[in-house]
Amino acid sequence: MTYERDIIRRMAGYAPGEQPADTGVIKLNTNENPWPPSPHVVDALAAVGAESLRRYPSPSAAAFLGEAAALHGVSAEQLVATNGGDELLRLAITTFVPPGRPIAIAEPSYSLYPVLAAIHDSPVHRITLDDDWSLPGGFAEELNDANVPLTLLVNPHAPSGRLLDAATIATFASALKGVLLVDEAYVDFADPGHDVVSLIANHDNLMILRTLSKGYSLAGLRLGYGIGPADLIRPIAAKTRDSYSVDAVADRLGAAALADQETARASWIAVRRERQRLTETLRDRGFEVPDSEANFCLARVPADAPASAATLHAGLKADGILVRHFDTPRLRDHLRISVGTPEQNDALLESLRVQLNR
Amino acid sequence: MTYERDIIRRMAGYAPGEQPADTGVIKLNTNENPWPPSPHVVDALAAVGAESLRRYPSPSAAAFLGEAAALHGVSAEQLVATNGGDELLRLAITTFVPPGRPIAIAEPSYSLYPVLAAIHDSPVHRITLDDDWSLPGGFAEELNDANVPLTLLVNPHAPSGRLLDAATIATFASALKGVLLVDEAYVDFADPGHDVVSLIANHDNLMILRTLSKGYSLAGLRLGYGIGPADLIRPIAAKTRDSYSVDAVADRLGAAALADQETARASWIAVRRERQRLTETLRDRGFEVPDSEANFCLARVPADAPASAATLHAGLKADGILVRHFDTPRLRDHLRISVGTPEQNDALLESLRVQLNR
Repeated sequence: MTYERDIIRRMAGYAPGEQPADTGVIKLNTNENPWPPSPHVVDALAAVGAESLRRYPSPSAAAFLGEAAALHGVSAEQLVATNGGDELLRLAITTFVPPGRPIAIAEPSYSLYPVLAAIHDSPVHRITLDDDWSLPGGFAEELNDANVPLTLLVNPHAPSGRLLDAATIATFASALKGVLLVDEAYVDFADPGHDVVSLIANHDNLMILRTLSKGYSLAGLRLGYGIGPADLIRPIAAKTRDSYSVDAVADRLGAAALADQETARASWIAVRRERQRLTETLRDRGFEVPDSEANFCLARVPADAPASAATLHAGLKADGILVRHFDTPRLRDHLRISVGTPEQNDALLESLRVQLNR
Repeated sequence: MTYERDIIRRMAGYAPGEQPADTGVIKLNTNENPWPPSPHVVDALAAVGAESLRRYPSPSAAAFLGEAAALHGVSAEQLVATNGGDELLRLAITTFVPPGRPIAIAEPSYSLYPVLAAIHDSPVHRITLDDDWSLPGGFAEELNDANVPLTLLVNPHAPSGRLLDAATIATFASALKGVLLVDEAYVDFADPGHDVVSLIANHDNLMILRTLSKGYSLAGLRLGYGIGPADLIRPIAAKTRDSYSVDAVADRLGAAALADQETARASWIAVRRERQRLTETLRDRGFEVPDSEANFCLARVPADAPASAATLHAGLKADGILVRHFDTPRLRDHLRISVGTPEQNDALLESLRVQLNR
């Protein structure tokens, strides 16, 4: 006898990237920041006392929200802290989408989106991206015609790294009848000057997802947040979120991380520099690599290469280097490579050179 | 314009107990363990390095699951780690209950249950407890007739502390057609010898919730887990749970806490001793207090007392002592008092003595 709901039995779960226990592996497969978190975060960890562990944490993660409000120039009512950005994605679905109504996503994008939709029993309305990974014209009208209550848009785009500018996001928010959630998981690595947060003042349907997993080197901590108009944030913060979903350690360490912008910015600058080098080197060797404003590159293996993407992926792994390969029709001949330290990127490029003999 | 779903707009959120920032308050309102966590937990915290924060954690919280498997004599496939026990409650609903189908709970019990049901758009099938907080006869047949896919039963019961024995739980599991989730948040404080975990071998519909918040003094860490037959655990662990819902810090500290049974058991013994003293002293003063096997007592204020429960609650707060008062018809004349240290309990009893002049 099975007790699972039919929709759960029929669906497949999310397949996370490999997380090896061996710390000697060069891990360029799940888009961690290759640089360590702020030393102030490590200090804050040492200062967490037994009493903070014994008691329940602040229900809202007040220390963290205070820092986030100061950083973004918004009020605490325009913010909600979550157990990683992934929790905010689920909560947006729970809060804004009646089961059965469609959720719109670009195809391809973050592979968790369709899993969350399946759990919610909502069909996925896929917007097929153009060859250059841009959104096709007229997609907003198409979504409005389909009465879509929530659109999930990762920007910079995963897995291509392509960035839509703020003016384009504003146009989409104005055009869409439902909620537009812009997943800015990778936005810290975009070239300076990009700003979508200021748009929430004029768009009552716009919510922004941020995470400390990438830009602040804290993937192990599970801390994300949402920024949006207070009316969009309130039902999530006060109703649909699990009680105490952010723990006392994340509350303090997250605050310490946001307060040290200098360390984080230095890592973003280093990632941009290496991203540029990786992109140019791979292009020189015949890979097709779109301009990325994230901390990864999507590299299309040359059609005349002596090894497929899957073979290169396995060869890299044999050399102790993990990258991501998605076995889907559109991505099968690509590798998604997180930008590592110069030494890690050198090792990656050398392994590819030996495998491809160029 | 509002973007909330109708059911979310109509519902009220969960009201957590007060979590004051002031650590001088005597906090007997949210059932924390009054004794500190294991020193090995504090050591494990100090040993969490920057690299563990930078990388994604183990998707399954493997270190913690290994300790839990050893402790309970079950396999890792019979366990799932969650972001506090509260996440497991939500996941059981998501996994086993089609929206609209009823969720059964005892009334009164944990006030989060109906909130989770409301978010899921499921009606609550309430089983009204008898005057002595026991379950009425024939309730299993009633739930089967109503085609209830999930029953949530907190044992020891909250807020009374009453414990159903394992044989009774076995009878319920056999009688119920749906899943029975036994919420053992407080079970560590029950008198030794109580064992429901061994029942999962013979009941394919029985899941047990455990948490480190109470018995292991780690409410700030947010770590709970489920124990059940592999077929019940699998869809939660592999499909419905958020990716990486347990962070790297909780994985390590939780493992350290379970590994140090000695420290935890010493706190349980101390709590039982003070629970007994608190119960007897309150009874001597005319309060009605059921036998509790949890780390709290439910005290009914004598009808002839010069102050109501609400007044006493406010008077205690004025004295720097927080307890919980539920303003519902059945609980309005009660106080739920977490068992504190001897000094904290002395302060509570003295404040009540002064207020009641007895």
